[in-house]
Amino acid sequence: MKLNGVEIEDTYAEAFTGFYSRILITAVNEKWARIAATEAVGYGTSLIECSAETGIEGMLPSESTPDGRPGCVIQIWASKKKMTKELIGRIGQCILTSPTAAVFNYCDSDEKLDVGYKMRFFGDGYESTTSVGGREMVSIPIMMGDFLIEKELGIAKGVAGGNFIILAKDQKSALRAAEEAVCVIEGVEGVITPFPGGVCAAGSKVGSKYKFMIASTNDKYCPTIADKVKDSKVKGIGAVLEIVIDGISEEKVGEAMKQGIKAAAEVDGVKKITAGNYGGTLGKVHFHLRKLLE
Amino acid sequence: MKLNGVEIEDTYAEAFTGFYSRILITAVNEKWARIAATEAVGYGTSLIECSAETGIEGMLPSESTPDGRPGCVIQIWASKKKMTKELIGRIGQCILTSPTAAVFNYCDSDEKLDVGYKMRFFGDGYESTTSVGGREMVSIPIMMGDFLIEKELGIAKGVAGGNFIILAKDQKSALRAAEEAVCVIEGVEGVITPFPGGVCAAGSKVGSKYKFMIASTNDKYCPTIADKVKDSKVKGIGAVLEIVIDGISEEKVGEAMKQGIKAAAEVDGVKKITAGNYGGTLGKVHFHLRKLLE
Amino acid sequence: MKLNGVEIEDTYAEAFTGFYSRILITAVNEKWARIAATEAVGYGTSLIECSAETGIEGMLPSESTPDGRPGCVIQIWASKKKMTKELIGRIGQCILTSPTAAVFNYCDSDEKLDVGYKMRFFGDGYESTTSVGGREMVSIPIMMGDFLIEKELGIAKGVAGGNFIILAKDQKSALRAAEEAVCVIEGVEGVITPFPGGVCAAGSKVGSKYKFMIASTNDKYCPTIADKVKDSKVKGIGAVLEIVIDGISEEKVGEAMKQGIKAAAEVDGVKKITAGNYGGTLGKVHFHLRKLLE
Amino acid sequence: MKLNGVEIEDTYAEAFTGFYSRILITAVNEKWARIAATEAVGYGTSLIECSAETGIEGMLPSESTPDGRPGCVIQIWASKKKMTKELIGRIGQCILTSPTAAVFNYCDSDEKLDVGYKMRFFGDGYESTTSVGGREMVSIPIMMGDFLIEKELGIAKGVAGGNFIILAKDQKSALRAAEEAVCVIEGVEGVITPFPGGVCAAGSKVGSKYKFMIASTNDKYCPTIADKVKDSKVKGIGAVLEIVIDGISEEKVGEAMKQGIKAAAEVDGVKKITAGNYGGTLGKVHFHLRKLLE
Repeated sequence: MKLNGVEIEDTYAEAFTGFYSRILITAVNEKWARIAATEAVGYGTSLIECSAETGIEGMLPSESTPDGRPGCVIQIWASKKKMTKELIGRIGQCILTSPTAAVFNYCDSDEKLDVGYKMRFFGDGYESTTSVGGREMVSIPIMMGDFLIEKELGIAKGVAGGNFIILAKDQKSALRAAEEAVCVIEGVEGVITPFPGGVCAAGSKVGSKYKFMIASTNDKYCPTIADKVKDSKVKGIGAVLEIVIDGISEEKVGEAMKQGIKAAAEVDGVKKITAGNYGGTLGKVHFHLRKLLE
Repeated sequence: MKLNGVEIEDTYAEAFTGFYSRILITAVNEKWARIAATEAVGYGTSLIECSAETGIEGMLPSESTPDGRPGCVIQIWASKKKMTKELIGRIGQCILTSPTAAVFNYCDSDEKLDVGYKMRFFGDGYESTTSVGGREMVSIPIMMGDFLIEKELGIAKGVAGGNFIILAKDQKSALRAAEEAVCVIEGVEGVITPFPGGVCAAGSKVGSKYKFMIASTNDKYCPTIADKVKDSKVKGIGAVLEIVIDGISEEKVGEAMKQGIKAAAEVDGVKKITAGNYGGTLGKVHFHLRKLLE
Repeated sequence: MKLNGVEIEDTYAEAFTGFYSRILITAVNEKWARIAATEAVGYGTSLIECSAETGIEGMLPSESTPDGRPGCVIQIWASKKKMTKELIGRIGQCILTSPTAAVFNYCDSDEKLDVGYKMRFFGDGYESTTSVGGREMVSIPIMMGDFLIEKELGIAKGVAGGNFIILAKDQKSALRAAEEAVCVIEGVEGVITPFPGGVCAAGSKVGSKYKFMIASTNDKYCPTIADKVKDSKVKGIGAVLEIVIDGISEEKVGEAMKQGIKAAAEVDGVKKITAGNYGGTLGKVHFHLRKLLE
Repeated sequence: MKLNGVEIEDTYAEAFTGFYSRILITAVNEKWARIAATEAVGYGTSLIECSAETGIEGMLPSESTPDGRPGCVIQIWASKKKMTKELIGRIGQCILTSPTAAVFNYCDSDEKLDVGYKMRFFGDGYESTTSVGGREMVSIPIMMGDFLIEKELGIAKGVAGGNFIILAKDQKSALRAAEEAVCVIEGVEGVITPFPGGVCAAGSKVGSKYKFMIASTNDKYCPTIADKVKDSKVKGIGAVLEIVIDGISEEKVGEAMKQGIKAAAEVDGVKKITAGNYGGTLGKVHFHLRKLLE
């Protein structure tokens, strides 16, 4: 199968079900909503080594938020067990401290974590409860005024690790294809791309020749050693980039993959698009590239 | 003492000596250097709860970097013991994975951590060493090409926790004053402002009425409870913001404080500027506000 | 013909041949290259009422510019007769005055305008000539140092007015589709989208019921009056946006249209894509939408 | 007089009274308000050669605008006679065409121009009138929906050409000082800095040795020819930048100058600050630097 002359490999992305929380950060203007969000989702590219897998989903105009201020929606992925701690950490350090920020639940789920309720103790007895747009809020006096956070934040099951891999003739075309893919994926609601700028430049494989390493460079996809690696999959390729996608449903992740692949395939210099899997043994959700593009 | 009609309280900021590493991230263009840096310094506002205190120091034009590409300088503050782990974590997750990024030491210190050398194992045997602009580099094949990181990254002692506190008549003027202060502080080399957008909206005090809390809201500086708090310092004040500054030397932190205070004092609606201290018992470096401004 | 369920009307965009100049602005960093470029291409959406049709084509990394500094490529479209005046005006007011900016020819053409040579008189006798990367440059002493501009700037014939029109169910989806289209078009070399943010929200038709107006709103494509306009083409449509594309060749403009249409058609809520023409009587270059997408 | 060790020359900036219009552009979000504003104020650095002197004053949060959407305030300076044409041109080409933009008067003046009323003819008979937040608006159907513009836009007398000139040891420090000055000036309501990024790198003097030139480089302030120019004022200086300020009142322009000079004087490498005048013969408003700083 070819898309605009680009080979779409007959393979699938192996994704996982996992837990996420999805919150809305509002602030006095878009600049400060984005600053709080950016700080809160930093150091969060991959669950393998970061405390969470995180990303900005998009901005929300003021008419769509409970307090009538511009907002920014973020996702935080972590194990169910660690989610409360992770939310308290990231919200407490990065959003509570950000001027004019407030936090609302944005997760459509019956399962709730009492994050706001737990954070109230920071108020040292001066905290109170209030209501904003029908939401139960905790109000904590801080230097800037009152920090408002919804009492309970939802947690839900979604699909993490949707992905596709762009093989291009050189770095410039690989990067451009990845940038365009990320740009159109931003238009799909409900998904994030957790890597820097949405792009992963250094995929890994499980295991290593060094026994103390549980993961190492995905050598079969490293162009500069194509001549040395047995079964290299990137002979004649100059650069490879991966887009990883987490989202609230299989449908949304699939939609994001489809749009991203199509955009990448339009870029001059892109040779092939494939996806990462572990032989189907680890993740329950399989996205067959060709089926997505039918 | 008054500056432009704004009272400068006769007090001092209590700062600490601590360890930092300072690294230069270069990339194909400023956009991607900044993306890698932003991811790497995320979730790093305060050592109290984050794994590190981090910030972007500034951009470096291509003629001033070892590989002739635009660069971004960041600082990472952590205890000496934890620094290697912290650097490997943030670099490995956020910079190694960022397209076209490379890492150079930017710390003027004889004390070195073998971070690059340790990270080489990710290369799974395909890693090598090379030289860029006279620096000893480790080269690790990744999907995008070769990731280059200097073999050793410096660690040095600096001054953390320089600060000043802006008391204003309302949120708008407090925020504007903080924004202007951050803007001029960005012009001082060698310092970072680790909080979101450079600004802390929720300062804390040690201890709480809740025994399980080691820190809680700095109630004396919370305007919305000024009537309820004994000895409130913000009667008649509408909003308070704090700027925290970490830097490579006492001189640089002092310079940044001075410039930031002057800029803040120019903004309409600012009433008073003070600073945070613990009675001088915890931190060795004291910045007396009035002395700075002489 | 349908693309992702979106009807592609069986029609064509009517474009024109015209003259453009294409110049490269370099500066000390990307920020200042972009500032100079943005000022220089302002108030330049359409030749109908602006003195020129202008746009930013894209950034150029420092390794691809004659002076090794980051650059920004812009296009300026005007009649051959007026081009020299237009270039002197925009360069003299917006680039000469921009800190650290320099100007190079970026037009692959034998036809040259002696813009730099004419601008030298601003030097009041202190001007000189020099060479940068093999280019003949005029050097004009200014307050910031020496302003360098290539002696001659090229002018060439290209294709203006390539376009497509997005019909969507509401403003949100129309805007999102336009944003994604502009994003992928930015990846095509040699083209600009002269309207604000690349998007035209108010297309016009020739003539009006008011005799003194030579152009007026394109009423057949105005959704809010669909019930009043005879032969309205937007019944059931909530919002319409047009993307106009100028470029250095028919091939490039066609490529940009193709990629833009494909990206727009992926967005939820887009109902139909069509194009603007005048019955083929005015413009020599016709882009048949379905042929582009084959 | 010295400020932070920087000499403040005993001189004055010679400014002029002139006419401006001040309008508020709102849009669905800050991004699009800013895009429309940026296009509308482009190619507008100086009345000498541009059709108008223009600039962005600042953003307005949604709670402060008549339609509850985020806004951007711009100023357009032109002669009273040409103002209507200039407004129709810039609004019609750059704001009407920008998705979701609307235009409100933001000029506190009894003198009005019927710009909106004149622009209604673009509606080709489908235009109507309506009211938003108590303002009389013209509603013009366009492709994106209805373009709303206030019927009358104010024109008022203000002060143009406030200025100061930064003399520094090198380009880097001059640029940094100018950037910091622009940053703090942005915090002063009612003023704009019309040059690219707020900074003029190429000041001019009246006249030239070439008789056909009415203006030429301000050679006395050009560092690269300091040895050749009689009475050069920049011996030992590496780079010079000028900040030009237009504003709604003498008080606001003076305030902006004061804040800008103070911020610039804090930057390492700045040697002297002066101002531009024509011997007091042309402009009625004189800003004495030392008086401003008292």
